[in-house]
Parts: sequence; C-alpha cells; structure tokens
Amino acid sequence: MTSAQSRLIESARTTLGPKAVLTDPTDIDPWLHDWRGRYHGASPAILAPDSTEGVARIVALAGEQGVALVPQGGNTGMVGGATPPADGSALILSLRRLNRIRTVLPADNLAIAEAGVILADLHAAALAQGRRFPLTLGARGSATIGGLVSTNAGGTQVLRFGTMRALVAGVEAVLPDGSIHDGLAALKKDNRGYDLNQLLIGAEGTLGIVTAATLRLVPAITARAVAWVGLESPEAALRLLRRLEAATHSIESFEIIPADSLGLVLRHIPGTRAPLGGSHPWHVLIESVATDAAAESPAGLLERLLAAALSDGMASDAVIGASEAQAEAFWRLRDSISESERAAGPAVQHDISVPVSAMPRFMIEAAAACEAAFPGTHASAFGHLGDGNVHFHVRAPTGIDPARWYAEDAPGVTRFVNDLVVSVGGSISAEHGIGQMKLGELERLSSPARMAALRAIKGALDPHGLFNPGKLVTLAPTPAKP
Amino acid sequence: MTSAQSRLIESARTTLGPKAVLTDPTDIDPWLHDWRGRYHGASPAILAPDSTEGVARIVALAGEQGVALVPQGGNTGMVGGATPPADGSALILSLRRLNRIRTVLPADNLAIAEAGVILADLHAAALAQGRRFPLTLGARGSATIGGLVSTNAGGTQVLRFGTMRALVAGVEAVLPDGSIHDGLAALKKDNRGYDLNQLLIGAEGTLGIVTAATLRLVPAITARAVAWVGLESPEAALRLLRRLEAATHSIESFEIIPADSLGLVLRHIPGTRAPLGGSHPWHVLIESVATDAAAESPAGLLERLLAAALSDGMASDAVIGASEAQAEAFWRLRDSISESERAAGPAVQHDISVPVSAMPRFMIEAAAACEAAFPGTHASAFGHLGDGNVHFHVRAPTGIDPARWYAEDAPGVTRFVNDLVVSVGGSISAEHGIGQMKLGELERLSSPARMAALRAIKGALDPHGLFNPGKLVTLAPTPAKP
Repeated sequence: MTSAQSRLIESARTTLGPKAVLTDPTDIDPWLHDWRGRYHGASPAILAPDSTEGVARIVALAGEQGVALVPQGGNTGMVGGATPPADGSALILSLRRLNRIRTVLPADNLAIAEAGVILADLHAAALAQGRRFPLTLGARGSATIGGLVSTNAGGTQVLRFGTMRALVAGVEAVLPDGSIHDGLAALKKDNRGYDLNQLLIGAEGTLGIVTAATLRLVPAITARAVAWVGLESPEAALRLLRRLEAATHSIESFEIIPADSLGLVLRHIPGTRAPLGGSHPWHVLIESVATDAAAESPAGLLERLLAAALSDGMASDAVIGASEAQAEAFWRLRDSISESERAAGPAVQHDISVPVSAMPRFMIEAAAACEAAFPGTHASAFGHLGDGNVHFHVRAPTGIDPARWYAEDAPGVTRFVNDLVVSVGGSISAEHGIGQMKLGELERLSSPARMAALRAIKGALDPHGLFNPGKLVTLAPTPAKP
Repeated sequence: MTSAQSRLIESARTTLGPKAVLTDPTDIDPWLHDWRGRYHGASPAILAPDSTEGVARIVALAGEQGVALVPQGGNTGMVGGATPPADGSALILSLRRLNRIRTVLPADNLAIAEAGVILADLHAAALAQGRRFPLTLGARGSATIGGLVSTNAGGTQVLRFGTMRALVAGVEAVLPDGSIHDGLAALKKDNRGYDLNQLLIGAEGTLGIVTAATLRLVPAITARAVAWVGLESPEAALRLLRRLEAATHSIESFEIIPADSLGLVLRHIPGTRAPLGGSHPWHVLIESVATDAAAESPAGLLERLLAAALSDGMASDAVIGASEAQAEAFWRLRDSISESERAAGPAVQHDISVPVSAMPRFMIEAAAACEAAFPGTHASAFGHLGDGNVHFHVRAPTGIDPARWYAEDAPGVTRFVNDLVVSVGGSISAEHGIGQMKLGELERLSSPARMAALRAIKGALDPHGLFNPGKLVTLAPTPAKP
C-alpha cells in the first residue's frame, strides 16, 4: 500500500465512518476477480459510501492524494471493466450501498434508482406499481443500475425498447473533480450544451461515477407467449421478423439459434429437450407480450402470424409454449448455449454487431471464412438477430490442448473475426463493452483520429487518469493485442 | 480581411475551385443576419464545398491559418447560432452544396442525407418510397439536415417520435483537426467508447461540422385527423393526453393554446375563425394518424375517445376537422400564434421545458408570478404540452415604448422566467438551442462544475476555438447577460 493510499483510507474512515471502508483481505478478495475468473486484480481497500455526497467526498480525497478508483457494482461484467489493476495501484469504489429506489412515479412512467440497486429489485418495485422496467439479462439478480448505465447494457428486450441509452431519462454522477453532475430531471427536450448524460452512459466509469439514474418504465405485462420456430436460414428468420414487426408492436424478443448450438445444449445440459420433432438448420425463439387485458392474446397472435409464415414456406415448423413452464423451458435452451459450449471444450466468444440487414449474410459468410482460415475450428453465431447483434463463438479443434490453443491460436481467431466485422461497418463490442478485454483491439481497429478524440475527452474530464484506469479509453495509447 | 483569411480564401479557391468560394458582398450579405433580423455579423467570404472531403480540406486549411469557421445550413435558427461574429473574424462555411440524399433504404427504414439537404426534400424522398421522416417544423422548406442535427431540433411530432437525437442513427462529421468522423453505420448496439455521435448532436457546430446523417424513417401516413378541443385547464389537458396515450399509439401532436393566444390570432390573422362556438379558457389541437389502411380511421378513433372525454367532463367541447382543408385551418391557428403576437406589440419569448407532469401547474403559476412581478405585462404559454415544452411569451404593457422596453425591461423578464424554470428543474432551452442568444443565461444558471466540464470538452476537441466561436460553449467564460 502506498502512503497516498493509506492517507486516503484514513480520511475516508474519518469522513464516512468505519462501515464505508473495508481493508480485510477476506472481504476484498471476492471483488478482485471478474465472475468468469479471467481477470485478477489487487487492491488494499474497498471504499463503500452510502450516498452521492459520500462518493463525491471520496473522489475529492482521492484526487488530492492522486489515488485511482475503480467503480464497481454487481461485478457481473464480461470484459474485466470492474476488476482493479493487478499492481494494486487503485482502490475499489463500491456503489453497492447506494441501493435506494428513490422514487417510482407510475403516472410519469419513471423511476429514480441509485447506482447500487440490483436490477431484479427495480423490476419488483416497478411491478408493484403496475409497471415494468423493460431491460433484463441473465445477471439480473446481481447486476446493478450503475453498471448497467455505465456499460450501456443490452439484453433480450432491446428489440422493442432499446439498450440502456434509450431507457435512461436522467443521470446523476460524480465527476473526476469531485463535483456532482445532477442530470436526473427527466426532460423530454433539453438543448443546453453537450449532453453529459449521453457521454456518461457507456463510459464504463472512466469519465464519471454514476450514482443514480432516472429510468423509463412501461406498462406491466398481462400475458406473454413464447414460440419456437424451425427454419432454413438466417435470411428467412429476418424476413419472418420483418413480417411480424409489420403486423404487431408486441414482439419483444427474437433470438436466433443454429442447429449446432441447440445440439450442444441438448447434449450437455441435463433435462433439456428439443421443442420440435424434425431437424432444422436454424431456430428462432420469439416472445410476444400483451400489456392490456383487452388486447389479442399473445399466443393467439403468434399462432395466427406463424400459421401464415408456415403456409407460405417462410418457416418450416413452429410450436407455441402451452404453459409458462414450457415458455421457460424454451428460454432455458437459449440461455444455456454458453454453458453447453464450455462443457464442449475451448472456445472464444465475440460480442459483435453489424447493420441488421447485413447480419444474415454475415453469419453464414463469416463462419465459413473463419473455419477455412483456422482448420478444425467450428464457428457459430446466435442471439439477437433483430438488433444486428450476435454472439459469434469459435470452438477449438477437437483434441487440441486448451492452454496452448488459448495462448497461441485464439488471439489470431479474434483478430480475424474482428477484421471481418469492421469490413462490413460493424462494431467489435455490441453490448458487453471494451473494459480491459478489448482495449488493444479497439486501438488497432479505430482510426487514429477517433482514438485521439476519445483520449482528448478522457483527458479533458479526468486529466490525471484516476477514474477506472486501464479500461475503455486510456490517456496513453495501448499496445495492440486482443 | 486579415492576411490569414486571405491566404485561406486563396487556398480554398485553388483546392476546391471558384464555385466553392464567394467573396462578393452581395452574395454574402443575406447570410450575415439571422432570419428574424436580431443578429448581425460580418465575414469576408463564404466557403461552400460540395463534399465531405472538401469540408475536411477547408477545416485543415483553416486550422493551419488559425481562422475560425461558422457552419451554416438554411439559416433558420432561433438563437443566432449560424450568424458569424460581428468583427468579421470568421468565415462562413456553408453546407448548402452538400445536398445529396445518398440513399433511402425503405426495408431498413433508414435514409442517409447530407448536411445541406432541405428537410422538405427529405420528406419527399421518403414519401416516394412509402416512408416518412417523422420530424417537421415551420421552416421545413429551408432548414437543412446538418442544422437540424446540430441543434437537436424538435417540432410538432416529438410526442411520438422524439427529437432529432432519437431519429439520428448515424453521424458523419469533420472534426476540428480536419479528420472525418465516420459514424454513419446504423448499428442498434455499439459500445466502443464514448458516443461521439451523441456528442455532436446538439453541439451547434462547436465540436464538429456535421456533413451527413443516417436518419430513421417510419411508414408513410395513410390517413390523419385533426381535432380541436376546448377545456378548463392545462391539468385537464394533460389528463386527456394521458387517456389518449393509454388507448392508442397514434397521437402525434398535442398542442395547448390559451384563449388569449387564440384571441390574438383571430384578431390579427386574416381569414381565421374559431373552431368552437363557445368560449373556453384553454384549447388543444390533437393530430392522430394511421399508417395502415386496415387500422381504425384516425377520425373515428378521435371521435370515440373525445366523446368519452366530453361525457365525463374532461373536455368541454370538441370538433374534428371534416376535411383536409379544415385540418390545415386548425394547424394554421396554432402556427400563427407568434405572428399574431408580433402584430400585437413587443414581447419576449422563452423556449422552455420542465418535467411533463409539472407543466400544467408551471404554466399557471409562472404566468401569474411574472405578471405580478412586472405589472402590465401579459404572460402566456402554448405549445408542446406532451413534451413538457411550452413557448412562454411575455408581452409588454400596452402603450410602452418598444425600444425602451426591450432594452430596459425585457432582460429582467427573461431572467425572472429562467429562474422559475430552473427552480423546478427545467431547461432554459428546450428545442431552440443556446446559440449566442442564451450564452449568458446558460453561464449564469449552470453550476461552475458543469460549465467547466462543457468547456473542458470544447477545449479538448477544438483547442483553438475555431469552430463556431461565441456559440453554445466558449473556451472562456461569457459575462452573464440574457
């Protein structure tokens, strides 16, 4: 521990009380690693204020001492964005005690939640008022609002409601100079200079520590239906989606799954079974919801629309979950793909996006190109077709030594996939962010002018680089490596 | 003309040809003043490239010579944002020759338009493909896409589709270092660092020159209906809006008009007549549209919903335009309010927003407070109630000398109104921007920390202050005056 760090820890204890400072290594250790165990950091303390003012004081004290801070919520990120540097140079700033839902305004369809509120708790609070916060993801039981805002999180309902960026109506944050940015007022129109809220959303804590957000709500769901459809190609899937969207606003999820991924799930995940009898090269899971008891039932609607798709050959077979249990079973197939892959052997994952209309062709051609360039690998893409966002996974050749493959081959596979993505105007980070995982690739694949602009903004707001150092945008260029 | 300016003009002529450089004062003069004649600038030349690369070259040359540039589109702004400084220190950079609609993709509901494309031309191009660009405003025959993006324009359809920020899927811009930011790809998910597109939207050309934008389209309208409703209060109007929104997604405009404003229109605008027989303290104009021939007709829908509102006393009287001509006549009443006020005498206008639910009370209380503080004045608010955005106008006492009132009293009225807005968490610029008009008030009413952050961003991207100097955010603080 440096003397500056110990001075900061002492001042934090004096100012905010002993509960706000953890220095026992057993308390700290769980938060030094990302949940997948890929990134490992070190830190002498966790600072855990329970108010925005407390965060502002810590930031001011840290600024005085020149000590870096790594903001952390539920620690459920995918790119190492909440893991402190390995050299122990930064303290963790936990937002988990800022966990109040300050208000729910059902008439205005708004809620104000602090950074440490767990997503599932916000879901429950909205539901208690007949409303819904329409963003969800696997980690909803631990992911926090601050992290979701700071990573511009996506999930399985983006199709209808957008990512966090579309759902955040206001942001409160502590800036690197210790000032509090109060942008919580939910104004539908506001043209008073550069939009700091938009700048903070997705900034991964490198420009400000998000302490609270005003979030948009929608009416609670009165009914839902989940269908499983077999079809010939991603292109047929996109045509089906376009037809559904022209007929109804009620489609909330449209997830594509190749036969290959479904096969892995059925093989490796106990208790799963195929929803359809025959064999199909591609599948989609579709969820439709109603928010009004008077509306057509989602099951009836899907039945009607899918019958038309079957009769003119757009789809090959379809089934609608007959019960909530069956709907959950369909979702479990989708949600178990990554787990089944881990059981199958080494693989590298890529969270990528391309323009929606380009996605069907990209899925086919990029997989073929990848398998040709790296003989023995198996590439497959699944996920949020309607968002132009798939998870493009490449599995290692069978029988290969995992450690050697990860060290020697996987980085080249990632560069290859990312080059393909960039060649069609896509993004190498659709919803997971950059964190520390993709720092080198961001640098390699962005124009020098763009990197210079990003770094200029970072340097303008955080000139000493004390906010989440080594993530997303750094003051100095990062050597290129995936 | 400085020698640096003449060197820039010469290089521009050499590089881009004579058509790209205007130096004849008769060509320049019309563009030195805003359309309302409130701001007057000077400039030795207009540079008018016809391509993004041409803009980049001019920006690079201007950077070498240290000459400031004022980007200009249709010159229809409300806050002097496109008027060059009066000292002649800047050249005008006209985007009007960048006027190609690069592509319309009806299947993707997207269009890519260059900065100089006139809004009405984009409307026509979209309609030719069965689509609509759902933002419109009075100046649609001259306002250009670049200006609309750079001011995050609003208008009368924001209720359903949002401001430009919600309609821009991509931005291409030239940054102050002469590099081209290519952010045109319409990715639904993209988490690759700070969102430069969002930063450029609404930045009034102070961080980058927008050269093109990817814009979202929606299905073309198959039918519309316009209703005029008389009711008791803004609060009743908001309740009516909430009820309509719960019943249908088809409401695109909901404009509130006080009896007082309607009276001015009927008195000063030839050929206008009151839509309703009786006298009502408040009125709303409602537009409902259909985009699907199979849907319920907008007129039938409004008739059904307004009948219910009348029967339970939420509204006092209502009429639905029986023809397109009558619908246009209703809109003309709304659109003539400012013109009728000008005929009535001196007034100051404020384009303000507050949270939607706070607006009804604000309209009543702020008007009363203003009239009490400035005896003889008459305050009234009208406009986009559903957006929480009204135009709050204060008319001078009758018989007063206009010049004296504008010089001596009006600034105090504006400060008073802005203070009220800020006290309820609102914005002193809802849709018009800051430009040069509101620079002092922005400074006065923003926290020093916020101004420091805005200035840091400006300084990071435009360190020499060459992009639209004296507008929105300046490198040095602006003395407070309204």
